[in-house]
Amino acid sequence: MKVDGRWRRAIELADDGRSVIVLDQARLPYEVGWLRLAELADVARAIRDMHVRGAPLIGAVAAYGVAIALRGGVALDEACTVLAATRPTAVNLQWALDQMRSLGSGGRLDPETAFAAAARICDEDVARCESIGRHGLPLFHAAAAAHPGRPVNVLTHCNAGWLATVDWGTALAPIYKAHEDGLAVHVWVDETRPRNQGLLTAWELAAHGVPHTVIADNAGGHLMQHGQVDLCIVGTDRTTRDGDVCNKIGTYLKALAAHDNGVPFYAAVPSPSIDWTADARAIPIEERNGDEVRFIRGVEIVPRGSPVANPAFDTTPRRLITGLITERGLATPAGLSSLFPESSR
Amino acid sequence: MKVDGRWRRAIELADDGRSVIVLDQARLPYEVGWLRLAELADVARAIRDMHVRGAPLIGAVAAYGVAIALRGGVALDEACTVLAATRPTAVNLQWALDQMRSLGSGGRLDPETAFAAAARICDEDVARCESIGRHGLPLFHAAAAAHPGRPVNVLTHCNAGWLATVDWGTALAPIYKAHEDGLAVHVWVDETRPRNQGLLTAWELAAHGVPHTVIADNAGGHLMQHGQVDLCIVGTDRTTRDGDVCNKIGTYLKALAAHDNGVPFYAAVPSPSIDWTADARAIPIEERNGDEVRFIRGVEIVPRGSPVANPAFDTTPRRLITGLITERGLATPAGLSSLFPESSR
Repeated sequence: MKVDGRWRRAIELADDGRSVIVLDQARLPYEVGWLRLAELADVARAIRDMHVRGAPLIGAVAAYGVAIALRGGVALDEACTVLAATRPTAVNLQWALDQMRSLGSGGRLDPETAFAAAARICDEDVARCESIGRHGLPLFHAAAAAHPGRPVNVLTHCNAGWLATVDWGTALAPIYKAHEDGLAVHVWVDETRPRNQGLLTAWELAAHGVPHTVIADNAGGHLMQHGQVDLCIVGTDRTTRDGDVCNKIGTYLKALAAHDNGVPFYAAVPSPSIDWTADARAIPIEERNGDEVRFIRGVEIVPRGSPVANPAFDTTPRRLITGLITERGLATPAGLSSLFPESSR
Repeated sequence: MKVDGRWRRAIELADDGRSVIVLDQARLPYEVGWLRLAELADVARAIRDMHVRGAPLIGAVAAYGVAIALRGGVALDEACTVLAATRPTAVNLQWALDQMRSLGSGGRLDPETAFAAAARICDEDVARCESIGRHGLPLFHAAAAAHPGRPVNVLTHCNAGWLATVDWGTALAPIYKAHEDGLAVHVWVDETRPRNQGLLTAWELAAHGVPHTVIADNAGGHLMQHGQVDLCIVGTDRTTRDGDVCNKIGTYLKALAAHDNGVPFYAAVPSPSIDWTADARAIPIEERNGDEVRFIRGVEIVPRGSPVANPAFDTTPRRLITGLITERGLATPAGLSSLFPESSR
């Protein structure tokens, strides 16, 4: 996507061929800055402290993290162990580490091979996201046909845009495709407290000229009650084989409201986000530092005498989900397995 | 309630007998400051700019506003017109102005009578809230009996505490009663973006030693899915005769989650918050200034290129509501009218 007038990816190999450059999402949307990750510790910190975020991007960064660690003389196993511990919920992280581990032999993997594999994971991520965009596009054409003369109103939660992936995004990919296709689209952007990733979505959409409106997380239900939302699309950090969708905290509330008002609710699910073995109740839900609730841009907002809690994800049961948009096409939750017969056995 | 070591109400007649002193809620929970309202314009501004807020308190302040206006030579009709225009959703404002208007004769009312009536409205508000507390208390005893050995976990949204009334609060009154009664209670406090009135609730609860935890508005559904909420209690800005509850934006989402998880959902409804004539779809929903979303404590958080929307209330349909706690006792939504036969005819 275009940043400061240049086409960039959210992660790129640096000119030295042994480190990567990532857009520093902790500074966005207020400043555009890039971080160089040159050592395993840099990579682990960038993921843990959310300088990079979004399930697919975390996977891509972790893959490069393994390559960087190997180049620095760290053993394959140790690199994978350190990176696996950074964040618990997004299954893409484990998926990418498994990919890298599977290339090793006797616990060894040469750095050249690892860098090439990480590059391939990034390219595949871009292709997968673009494909999700193509498969989601007909939903917008259908909504536009159902409501002629006004934009298609779509609501999204958190950021599942190109910032959350290598390029294109997951939930936002069909929106970008619809916009490119000349459809009038308007996006309701949930703020997504406590970390306000909705503002990353707003920044992305503004950069691409997609009309949008930022709303408090509380507002979406009211908008749906009043016919102001035609469809919802969210991303996912982990989706079960049965189609239960774990995603940013608050997703479940929007799915309930969509269900209550007959608004179709979709999750954009690239296959590395599918956990073929997990049960919905067994997905580890990250509890992040309470300071994310207590402070906004360095300003303390919660009274000191009051404790805070900060669960970062919730799980939306499949009964509330209209469909899953994968790189192989649309599926109902029950139909997900049949799209991926080789993985779901 | 106790503020800075003294027992105070959220609104009090000043020593001069012709102005009122209110706690400035625009500065809470960061500083405790009081505002003197000595003229009609002061009162209108305090309500409109939310230096005072909360449906019952708005009614009480407006009643004094009429008295203050009359003392200043403003006509009864003009005073009521100016005050009625300050905020559209809370029906208590109209109710209080109707009370004052009904005392007039030929459009005239003497200031002494008006001040006495405003004082009576305040006293009655305190009595009503305390009664709501008494009628809600058995819900806590029942929850405690059902879950021995741990605190009763209650979730509330926005601030319906003593700050939103003259004293006691509506939704918080049963919580204070339960706490006074020696029950172990823990309150999940929704932040309540965009204006963060949950932080007023946290401040109140901390001042009274009631255990509580502040959470993002997104978190409540997840907590309910995991058995961490025993009951929900919210306030209301306007409840219809059929028991549809208009309250702070986001209430509807929590009611959906409560319903989905079998968590009882109550609204605390003093009778002046009941609109016996309105249909739920006809309740005017205030759209407030987008800067409330864009700025937090003076810090701009939304990118300049992104528009914002800021609907301030939503309406929870009666099918999601377990019960209404009124000053005359508990009612189902369908049973509300029979508690108030004189009003509901």
